[in-house]
Amino acid sequence: MEKVTVSIVMGSDSDLPIMEEAAKILEHLGVGYELDIVSAHRTPEKLFDYAKNAHTRGIQVIIAGAGGAAHLPGMIASLSPLPVIGVPIKSSNSIDGWDSVLSILQMPSGVPVATVALNGAKNAGILAAQIASIASSMIRENIIAYKASLSEEVMVKSARVKR
Amino acid sequence: MEKVTVSIVMGSDSDLPIMEEAAKILEHLGVGYELDIVSAHRTPEKLFDYAKNAHTRGIQVIIAGAGGAAHLPGMIASLSPLPVIGVPIKSSNSIDGWDSVLSILQMPSGVPVATVALNGAKNAGILAAQIASIASSMIRENIIAYKASLSEEVMVKSARVKR
Amino acid sequence: MEKVTVSIVMGSDSDLPIMEEAAKILEHLGVGYELDIVSAHRTPEKLFDYAKNAHTRGIQVIIAGAGGAAHLPGMIASLSPLPVIGVPIKSSNSIDGWDSVLSILQMPSGVPVATVALNGAKNAGILAAQIASIASSMIRENIIAYKASLSEEVMVKSARVKR
Amino acid sequence: MEKVTVSIVMGSDSDLPIMEEAAKILEHLGVGYELDIVSAHRTPEKLFDYAKNAHTRGIQVIIAGAGGAAHLPGMIASLSPLPVIGVPIKSSNSIDGWDSVLSILQMPSGVPVATVALNGAKNAGILAAQIASIASSMIRENIIAYKASLSEEVMVKSARVKR
Amino acid sequence: MEKVTVSIVMGSDSDLPIMEEAAKILEHLGVGYELDIVSAHRTPEKLFDYAKNAHTRGIQVIIAGAGGAAHLPGMIASLSPLPVIGVPIKSSNSIDGWDSVLSILQMPSGVPVATVALNGAKNAGILAAQIASIASSMIRENIIAYKASLSEEVMVKSARVKR
Amino acid sequence: MEKVTVSIVMGSDSDLPIMEEAAKILEHLGVGYELDIVSAHRTPEKLFDYAKNAHTRGIQVIIAGAGGAAHLPGMIASLSPLPVIGVPIKSSNSIDGWDSVLSILQMPSGVPVATVALNGAKNAGILAAQIASIASSMIRENIIAYKASLSEEVMVKSARVKR
Amino acid sequence: MEKVTVSIVMGSDSDLPIMEEAAKILEHLGVGYELDIVSAHRTPEKLFDYAKNAHTRGIQVIIAGAGGAAHLPGMIASLSPLPVIGVPIKSSNSIDGWDSVLSILQMPSGVPVATVALNGAKNAGILAAQIASIASSMIRENIIAYKASLSEEVMVKSARVKR
Amino acid sequence: MEKVTVSIVMGSDSDLPIMEEAAKILEHLGVGYELDIVSAHRTPEKLFDYAKNAHTRGIQVIIAGAGGAAHLPGMIASLSPLPVIGVPIKSSNSIDGWDSVLSILQMPSGVPVATVALNGAKNAGILAAQIASIASSMIRENIIAYKASLSEEVMVKSARVKR
Repeated sequence: MEKVTVSIVMGSDSDLPIMEEAAKILEHLGVGYELDIVSAHRTPEKLFDYAKNAHTRGIQVIIAGAGGAAHLPGMIASLSPLPVIGVPIKSSNSIDGWDSVLSILQMPSGVPVATVALNGAKNAGILAAQIASIASSMIRENIIAYKASLSEEVMVKSARVKR
Repeated sequence: MEKVTVSIVMGSDSDLPIMEEAAKILEHLGVGYELDIVSAHRTPEKLFDYAKNAHTRGIQVIIAGAGGAAHLPGMIASLSPLPVIGVPIKSSNSIDGWDSVLSILQMPSGVPVATVALNGAKNAGILAAQIASIASSMIRENIIAYKASLSEEVMVKSARVKR
Repeated sequence: MEKVTVSIVMGSDSDLPIMEEAAKILEHLGVGYELDIVSAHRTPEKLFDYAKNAHTRGIQVIIAGAGGAAHLPGMIASLSPLPVIGVPIKSSNSIDGWDSVLSILQMPSGVPVATVALNGAKNAGILAAQIASIASSMIRENIIAYKASLSEEVMVKSARVKR
Repeated sequence: MEKVTVSIVMGSDSDLPIMEEAAKILEHLGVGYELDIVSAHRTPEKLFDYAKNAHTRGIQVIIAGAGGAAHLPGMIASLSPLPVIGVPIKSSNSIDGWDSVLSILQMPSGVPVATVALNGAKNAGILAAQIASIASSMIRENIIAYKASLSEEVMVKSARVKR
Repeated sequence: MEKVTVSIVMGSDSDLPIMEEAAKILEHLGVGYELDIVSAHRTPEKLFDYAKNAHTRGIQVIIAGAGGAAHLPGMIASLSPLPVIGVPIKSSNSIDGWDSVLSILQMPSGVPVATVALNGAKNAGILAAQIASIASSMIRENIIAYKASLSEEVMVKSARVKR
Repeated sequence: MEKVTVSIVMGSDSDLPIMEEAAKILEHLGVGYELDIVSAHRTPEKLFDYAKNAHTRGIQVIIAGAGGAAHLPGMIASLSPLPVIGVPIKSSNSIDGWDSVLSILQMPSGVPVATVALNGAKNAGILAAQIASIASSMIRENIIAYKASLSEEVMVKSARVKR
Repeated sequence: MEKVTVSIVMGSDSDLPIMEEAAKILEHLGVGYELDIVSAHRTPEKLFDYAKNAHTRGIQVIIAGAGGAAHLPGMIASLSPLPVIGVPIKSSNSIDGWDSVLSILQMPSGVPVATVALNGAKNAGILAAQIASIASSMIRENIIAYKASLSEEVMVKSARVKR
Repeated sequence: MEKVTVSIVMGSDSDLPIMEEAAKILEHLGVGYELDIVSAHRTPEKLFDYAKNAHTRGIQVIIAGAGGAAHLPGMIASLSPLPVIGVPIKSSNSIDGWDSVLSILQMPSGVPVATVALNGAKNAGILAAQIASIASSMIRENIIAYKASLSEEVMVKSARVKR
C-alpha cells in the first residue's frame, strides 16, 4: 500500500458521503490517504493537536471539508505549514451553501486555503494528487491518464448524441 | 474603577476604530472592560490560551470582532463556556460584508455566537451590558436610562423636523 | 421546578417545531422557561404588554423567533431592557431565509438583537443558558458538561470513521 | 392650503434628504401632507400612538421610510387600517440596501406594506397621490398631467440625442 | 353584487393558483373585482388597451402578478394613472424569486408600483381594499374587523401553546 | 455612409455615456446605426410605434440599454420580430446592477433578449455586428480583423510585462 | 431538409433534456441545426477545432449551453467570429444557477456572448432563428407567425379564466 | 537565482498591481517565478500553447488571476496536469467580485482550480510556496518562519493596543 501523504478530515460524520469522493479518487490516482473527523467547534483541542503535527507525520496535503460557518479548513491552515484544501459543504444548516463557501474562501492575507467548488470533494482529491505529483512522477502520469479518460468519456457521449 | 467583566478582542488593529465603539458605550453604561488583539489565524495559540481561561479570570461576556472569513468569535465560543458576542466587520478584504456576517452567524448546533449587525460594535457593547445586568441592578438602571435618552433624542429631532 | 428565567416567544404556531429545540436544550441545561406566541404584526398590543413587562416578572433573557420580514425580536428589544436573542426562521414565505436573517440582524445603533443562525433555536437556548450562567454557577457547570459531551460524541464518531 | 391626507414619517433625521422627495412631489400634485420622525426602535410608544390614531385624524395614506432592519412601515401597517407605503432607505448601516428592502417588502400574510424602490421616496409620493385620487378628480387630473410631462421631457431629450 | 373596482391581471394562467388569493380576500372584504390574463410579452397590444382604459371603466386599483423578468405591473403603471399593485411570483423560470421581486420593485422615478411580498397575492388584495376604503367607510370597517380577526386567531393559538 | 441596420435605444439620456460605446465600435466595424431615447415607462406609446415598425424600416438588429427595473429591451422584444440585444446598465437607482441584469435576462419562454454584461454596450455593438455579418462578408472580415487586433494588443502588453 | 446554419453544443449529456428545447423550436421555425457535446474542460482540443472552424462550414450562429463555472460559450466566442448564444444551465453542481449565469454573461470587452435566461434553451433557439432571419425572409415570416401564435394562446386562456 | 517553478499569469495588464503581490511573497519565500499576460478570450492560442507545455518546462505550480467571467484559471486547469491556483479579481467590469469568484471556484468534477480569496494574490503566492515545499525543505522552513513572523507582528500590535 502507498505511504499516507494526504489527510482527509471533516467536521461531522454527516459530511462523510461527500468527503468519501476525495478518498475514492485518491485511491484511483494511487495516492495514500487517511480519513478522520475533526470538529473545529466541538473538538478544538483535537484540531490543535492534529493540525500542529500533521507535517511531522509525513502528511503532504490536508483536505478539510465543512459546512455553514465552516472554520475547520481555515483553522488548520492557521496551525500547519502544509497546503490545505477546503471543501465547502452544503450541509443542512447552510444558507444554500453561501456561508460554507465564503467562510472557507475569504481567508485573510497570510493564511491561504485552496478552496474548491461547493461539495467538490472529488476535485479536492484530484488537486491533492496534483500537489503530490510535484514529488512523484508516477502520480503525475496517473493524472495525465485520468485527464485523457475524461476526454474519452465525452467523445463517446458526443458520438451517441450526434445526428 | 469597575471590575473588568467584559473582554473585547479583535482580529487585527485595523478593526480598532470600529471596535472602540463597544468600549465607549460600556464605559458609558458603567461596565468594566479590557481590550486586546487576538488573531484566530495568525496567533492561534494565543487564541487558545485566551479563550480557555477567560471565565476563570472573572470575565462574564466576550465581544469578538473580525472580518472576511471571520473565525475568531466562533473559535472562542468553541473554547469558552461564556456567552460570546460576534461583530462582523466590513474589512477591506470582505465581499461587501457578506463573508463576515455569514462566517460569524451560521455557527453549528451546540456552539452559538450572539451576532450583531455589520460593524455593530456599539450594539455589541450594549448587549454585553444587558447580559451583565443579569447580575447587577446598577447596570440594569443604566440601560433603562440609556434607552430613555435614545427616545428623547428622537423627540427633539421630531420637534425640529415637524411643520 | 426551576424558576422561569427565559421566555421563548414566536410569531406563529408554524414556528413551533423549530422553537421547541430551544425549550428542550434549556430543560437539559436546568434553566426554567416559558413558551408563547406573540405576533408583532397580528397582535401588536400583546407584543407591547409582553415586552414592557417581561423584566418585571423576573425574566432574564428573551428568545424570539420569526420569519420573513421578522420584526418580533427587534420590537421586543426596542421595548425591553433585557437581552433579546433572535432566531431567524426559514418560513414558507421567506426568500431562502435572507429576509428573516437581515430583518433580525441589522438592528440600528442602540437596540441590539443577539442573532443566531437560520433556524438555530437550539443555539438560542444554549446562548440563553450561557447568559443565565452569569448569575448561576450550577448552570455554568451544566454548560461545561454539555460542551464536554459534544466533544465526546465527535470522538466516538471519529473512532468509527477512522481506518 | 390642502387638507392633510398623507402623513410622511421616517425612522431618523438622516433619512430626511431622501424622504423630502415625497413631500415635494405631493406638493406638486396638490396633495396635503405632514412630516415627522417616528422611530420604531427608539420611540416605540410614539409609534403606537401615531399608528393607532392616524386614520381618526383624517389621514388617508401613510408613507414610512426606514433603513437596515427597517420595522417602521411594517409596524405601522400592523396598527393602522390605512394603506402604508414603505420606502427602503440605503442608510449607512445597511448592507447595500438588501436589509432595508427585504425587511419592508416581505410582510406576512394579513399585513401588507406597499413597497417602492430603494430610496424611492418620490415614487412613494406619486403612489400616495394615486391612492388619494380615488376620492379626488382634481388629484387624478394632476397625475395625468404629470405623466404627460414625463413623456414630454423624454421627447425633448430624444430630439437632442438623435442624429 | 358590488361594483367592480379592483382589476386583477396576471401574465400566465400558471399564476392563477397564487393570484386567486387576491380574489378571495377581496370577496371577503366586500370589494368587487374582475380577473384576467394579460401578458406583457405575449399580448402587448392587449396590455396597451387594457392599461390605457382601466380608469375610464371605473376601476380604482389594479393588481398585477408576474414572475421572472416581470414587466406586466411596471408597464401597466406606465400607461395608467391608477395605483398599481405588483405581486412578484416565484414562477418555475425564476431564480429563487429575485428576478420577479427586482423587476417589479425597482421602478424608475415617476412610475411607482406598490410591490408586495413574493407570492403575496393575499396581501395585494388587502392593500387594494385599503386603497378602496379611502372612498368607502363600509370597506374600512371590514378591514378593521379583519385585522381584529387576525389578532384573535393568534390569541387562540397562544392559549393552546402556552404551558 | 453605410445603410442604417442597427438601432440603438436607451431609456434615459443618463445612459448615453455608456451606450455611445456601442455606436463607436459599430462605426469601427463598418456598420450603419441610429441612436435614440425611448423610455418604456415614460413614453410607452413611442416605444410601441418604434418597436412595431423597426423591421419595416430595414433595421436588422436592435440594441436597447436600461437600468433598474429595466423593461425596455424586453418590451421591444415583445413587439418586434428582430433580434434584440439588451444592455443592463448600473444606473444610480440600481441595486449594484442586479435589478438591471435580472429584469433584462430572465425573459419568459417565447420572447428572448440577447443579454450582454453589465454596462457592456461595446460588446452589444460587437454582437450586433456579428449578427449583421450573417448577410455581409465585409462586416465578417472586419470582425475577424478586430479579433486579431485584440490578440495583438495583449501580445504587446505581454512583452512589456515579461521579465 | 434545411441547410444546417445553427450549431447547438453543450458541456455534458446531462444538459441534453434542456438543450433539446432549442432544437425543437428551430425545427418548428424551419431552421437547420446540428447537435453535439463539446466540453471546454474535458475536451479542450475538440473545443478549439470546433470553434475555429464552425464559420467555415457555413454555420451562422452557435448556441452553447453549460452550467457551474460555465466556460464553453465564452471560449467559443473567443475563437469564432460568429454570434454565440449562451444558455446558463442550473446543473446539479451549480449554486442556484448564479455561477452559470455570471460566468456566461459577464464576458470582457471585445468578446460578447448573447446570454439568455437560466435554462432558457428554447429562447436561445428563437434568438438563433431571429439572427438567421437577417438573411432569410422565410424564417422571418415563421417568427412573425410564431409570435402571433403566442398571443393567441394567451387569448384563449384569458377567455377561460375571465368571469 | 532560484529555478523558476511557479508561473504567474493574468488576463490583463490591469490585473498587474494585484498579481504582483504573488510575485513579492514568492521572492520573500525563496521560490523562483515568472510573470506573463495570457488572455483566455483575446489570446486563446497563446493560452493553449502556454497551458499544454508549462509542465514540460519544469513549472510545478501555476497561479492565474482574472476578473468578471474569469475563464483563464479553469481553461489552464483543463489543459495542464499541474495544480492551478485561481485568483478572482474584482476588476472594473465585475459585479462586486461575485462573477470572478464563481466562474473560478465552481469548476466541474474532474478539473479543480485551487481558488483563493477575492484579490487574494498574496495568498496565492503563499499557497504556491506551500505546494513547492512538498519537494523542498528550504521552502518549508521559510514558510514556517513566515508564519512565526505573522504571529509576532500581531503580538506587537496587541501590546500596543492593550491597556
